Amino acid sequence: MNIDMIEAAKKRLKGHARVTPLLSSPFIDELAGRRVFVKAETLQHTGSFKFRGAWSAVSAMEEATRKNGVLAFSSGNHAQGVALAAKNHGVSALIIMPTDAPKMKIDNTRALGAEIVLYDRIKESREEIGEKISKDRGLTLIKPYDEPQVIAGQGTVGLEIIEQAKELDVDAKNLLVCCGGGGLTSGVAIAIAHYAPNILVRPVEPVGFDDVTKSLAAGKIIKNKDGSGSICDAIVTPQPGDLTFPIMKKYCSAGLVVSDEDCLKTMAIAYSRLKIVLEPGGAVALASAIFRKKDIDDGDVIVIASGGNVDEGLFRSALQKYGNSF
Amino acid sequence: MNIDMIEAAKKRLKGHARVTPLLSSPFIDELAGRRVFVKAETLQHTGSFKFRGAWSAVSAMEEATRKNGVLAFSSGNHAQGVALAAKNHGVSALIIMPTDAPKMKIDNTRALGAEIVLYDRIKESREEIGEKISKDRGLTLIKPYDEPQVIAGQGTVGLEIIEQAKELDVDAKNLLVCCGGGGLTSGVAIAIAHYAPNILVRPVEPVGFDDVTKSLAAGKIIKNKDGSGSICDAIVTPQPGDLTFPIMKKYCSAGLVVSDEDCLKTMAIAYSRLKIVLEPGGAVALASAIFRKKDIDDGDVIVIASGGNVDEGLFRSALQKYGNSF
Repeated sequence: MNIDMIEAAKKRLKGHARVTPLLSSPFIDELAGRRVFVKAETLQHTGSFKFRGAWSAVSAMEEATRKNGVLAFSSGNHAQGVALAAKNHGVSALIIMPTDAPKMKIDNTRALGAEIVLYDRIKESREEIGEKISKDRGLTLIKPYDEPQVIAGQGTVGLEIIEQAKELDVDAKNLLVCCGGGGLTSGVAIAIAHYAPNILVRPVEPVGFDDVTKSLAAGKIIKNKDGSGSICDAIVTPQPGDLTFPIMKKYCSAGLVVSDEDCLKTMAIAYSRLKIVLEPGGAVALASAIFRKKDIDDGDVIVIASGGNVDEGLFRSALQKYGNSF
Repeated sequence: MNIDMIEAAKKRLKGHARVTPLLSSPFIDELAGRRVFVKAETLQHTGSFKFRGAWSAVSAMEEATRKNGVLAFSSGNHAQGVALAAKNHGVSALIIMPTDAPKMKIDNTRALGAEIVLYDRIKESREEIGEKISKDRGLTLIKPYDEPQVIAGQGTVGLEIIEQAKELDVDAKNLLVCCGGGGLTSGVAIAIAHYAPNILVRPVEPVGFDDVTKSLAAGKIIKNKDGSGSICDAIVTPQPGDLTFPIMKKYCSAGLVVSDEDCLKTMAIAYSRLKIVLEPGGAVALASAIFRKKDIDDGDVIVIASGGNVDEGLFRSALQKYGNSF
């Protein structure tokens, strides 16, 4: 993995992925006690940054291999990204999704033309199912984060942030990233280390699923105790990736951890102040900027709002609880 | 009013107003039966395009006049735009708002540092109140639409659309604009007539408040019967402006009319498919693309999503009713 792969992915994504805006609000600045800049990847195609990695991977494949189709396992955002990237390349996609994935994510993935196989997140291994189907049907597996071209695609978020932050005269010491397996975090970290080494990239995770934060602190991979139990479905992964962890260890600073409740509050704040829809897992970075301010270095802060695929019932309950609190 | 004023406004807005993205979704394309491109002005500072016109007007004032402060009357979006533009220019703002304006709009305008005077939308004339205070206190009135520099600022939305549509290979015959007094519609119409004369600009209004549609059909200004009664508060104006109507008459094609219920549906669709928050009045143009498709010329269509300042209760009810319907 290196910066050249990210630059190459940027070229392949041009005209296909969206350049998402870097948003801000004086009201959020006041809540956070500093200027906060929000990279709104929720506005990316399929509602999350995952489309970048998926497009990067599918577009990098040899035509002869690609035409046999692709396969992915995902709680929903990588699923939708791969489904749309495959569809727009004219090839088939099979996606393995957990039975407890948000309904919207399963429906969207199917509507984007993918074939869906459901599995039990607790009892079954998606990796095993994926490898078996991949072998049986000649499909190429596109892993959600431990895959160089996926990491390269996610890294293009970092390239855009560097450019946009310059235009807006942002002087940030910390860039906070919603972190699951670490594909986005490691890709962005490589880009930032290359072009803006003064900015520290920091993963943000939900309470109880802070495997990356713990692993970075310990210097070795540490697994989460539980397999499920957070509303942040998009970033509940068992442990950092074999490929992403060494990158994060090299380039990232200490992780931050936020509660599910802080995510709900942040969803209500992003609704009223930025006019964007965030899912819980896409809200953790902004949540940490607002609710963990003492743990963040002084100065402006940049956060990635990574996705917005949230069932309307959960979104409504966030608004009902906190819509008038901030 | 001419294109040079819009180009000049663009220069004054650079670095202050946000270049908002032109969004799309395969799901919305399917609902509309064509490609739909959504200019997301809900992502503009203060949550609506109104910041552009406000910044344009405040930045165009002579310094000696500006320092005495500005005054505006508005149901809330122009209010917030003027409040922030004044604040960022270091001058005071007094805003006259109807008592029935959404709570969020009143709160935000106050939080942006403006002084608020409330009036009764039915019994009192905001124009009369405004002119009196303006005279008494030496404040410069910035009208919400019948003001050349405001129209020029709103017209910059059209300049951006032309550029972005070119990048995305959009081939549209209709550009649909949420229309109240006609400031946005007339500004955009001048820009489009100059740079993309093949695109027809069409105002969109809520049922019962289709004064522009009726006036365009009659060739003369026709007032609405009622003063209130639509959820589309942002675009419920008594009649087209004296300045904006001749421009719309010269450059615009027939108007379109949508129901409040279609606006609620569209808010739910924009939530789930674009991840943006729309207020009812900011949703009418997209609503017409989806629910009035037979009345729109064939080919791609571009719509402006003009604002997103909606109280959370109303937004929740839109999601509850229609969140799972599309």
